[in-house]
Amino acid sequence: VATHRLTIAYDGTPFSGWAPQPGLRTVGGEVAAALQRILGDPVAITVAGRTDAGVHAWGQVASFDGPDEVPDELARRLNAVLPDQISVLAAMPAASGFDARRDARSRMYCYRVLSSPVPSPFELGRALWWPAPLARERLDACAAAVMGTHDFTAFTPTQTEHVRFERHVLRCEWRSHPAEPPQPGEVLELWIEADAFMRNMVRVLVGTMLEVGGGRRTLKDFAALLAGGPRERAGETAPPHGLYLAAVAY
Amino acid sequence: VATHRLTIAYDGTPFSGWAPQPGLRTVGGEVAAALQRILGDPVAITVAGRTDAGVHAWGQVASFDGPDEVPDELARRLNAVLPDQISVLAAMPAASGFDARRDARSRMYCYRVLSSPVPSPFELGRALWWPAPLARERLDACAAAVMGTHDFTAFTPTQTEHVRFERHVLRCEWRSHPAEPPQPGEVLELWIEADAFMRNMVRVLVGTMLEVGGGRRTLKDFAALLAGGPRERAGETAPPHGLYLAAVAY
Repeated sequence: VATHRLTIAYDGTPFSGWAPQPGLRTVGGEVAAALQRILGDPVAITVAGRTDAGVHAWGQVASFDGPDEVPDELARRLNAVLPDQISVLAAMPAASGFDARRDARSRMYCYRVLSSPVPSPFELGRALWWPAPLARERLDACAAAVMGTHDFTAFTPTQTEHVRFERHVLRCEWRSHPAEPPQPGEVLELWIEADAFMRNMVRVLVGTMLEVGGGRRTLKDFAALLAGGPRERAGETAPPHGLYLAAVAY
Repeated sequence: VATHRLTIAYDGTPFSGWAPQPGLRTVGGEVAAALQRILGDPVAITVAGRTDAGVHAWGQVASFDGPDEVPDELARRLNAVLPDQISVLAAMPAASGFDARRDARSRMYCYRVLSSPVPSPFELGRALWWPAPLARERLDACAAAVMGTHDFTAFTPTQTEHVRFERHVLRCEWRSHPAEPPQPGEVLELWIEADAFMRNMVRVLVGTMLEVGGGRRTLKDFAALLAGGPRERAGETAPPHGLYLAAVAY
């Protein structure tokens, strides 16, 4: 028995998230079915980030124990049977007992916003289109406030399975670049890395930051939420299609 | 009456090309319907490049004569009624009698190839996935051979409405950049500008160049086709989903 590590990219649009659920098309369900088809037997897969419905991944990491395989060959065979919206970017051997979820030191997410008066057909389902003006320095101030250790209770649903609400944010910054193809406006990306994330955490952070950036909420109010404010005081949950699990560090 | 100029981007996937056809969903048909809905009366639209089914555009240009309109307001109203896969990037007043097709000095197309052993869900329908090795210097030599004036009979269907087969190629080069999101391999783009293009011309050029790049055809053979060889001696027509009408010069 060998331990395998997969790096997986997917367009989350057609899936009901990662976690396998009976009767629903999920990324984890598709990966499990592909592995079973290739290996003959079912395997138990663990994953670094259980993304929600519609959320994308550039660098999801999964692990499983199974028979010895040639890594490149395993990736090729998986891609041949997986749906087009899921791609195994790399397969590699891992140390015995490696667990993609438990051993992850941090996760990095990226939330993409098309800040433009005109929509882009090429960002449809790939970025949140935001035609209203945004003050970049206010977004930056929000991101700076998020850095460090906070109680993020305000940024996850009230009905929760989480038991610990503190998270350590190692990086949080907005970056911008011209839209591609060229068009008015720009793409704003929130890059956020933390030890772990709670359900909806990035999306509620972004939804609340956009209220600050648009002038509908003060920076002081935003900062106050980071001390464990109630969910109802934070902003809306930004839609899933702007969110990407970018990378996982071990 | 004022003359208007529209710059339009579209994801060609769901459309049967630009040219309106009864019973089919076309980009031109959607734009005409949106204009009629806003202006009340039908208008005659001319367009710089009548793209085929599945071909995309970053900078299509269309013109029409109609009532005076505030440009930004016209773009906003069109985007509100157009399908999400079509976006008016800009509307602007044009000189009286401006005709997007007749007045175009040149068109620039881009053909995108994902040269990688692994597919990308984010390039699905956006680039041709090409897992076989490609020799870049052979592709570059093909592009250099295309520069200038040639008889491109070999690069358009035999059944044709074209009467003149010479075209003047002003720019033809392969460019590469890392795939985004990061993954093995790279994105190769053929950028080609000419006074005008024949039907399928870029796609047959790319299909034939890929044969040269993969070693299945000699550069000498490719160059010989540029002197008016027959269609059946050229390579396959590359699929439409890698092709973009990038820009039009006036």
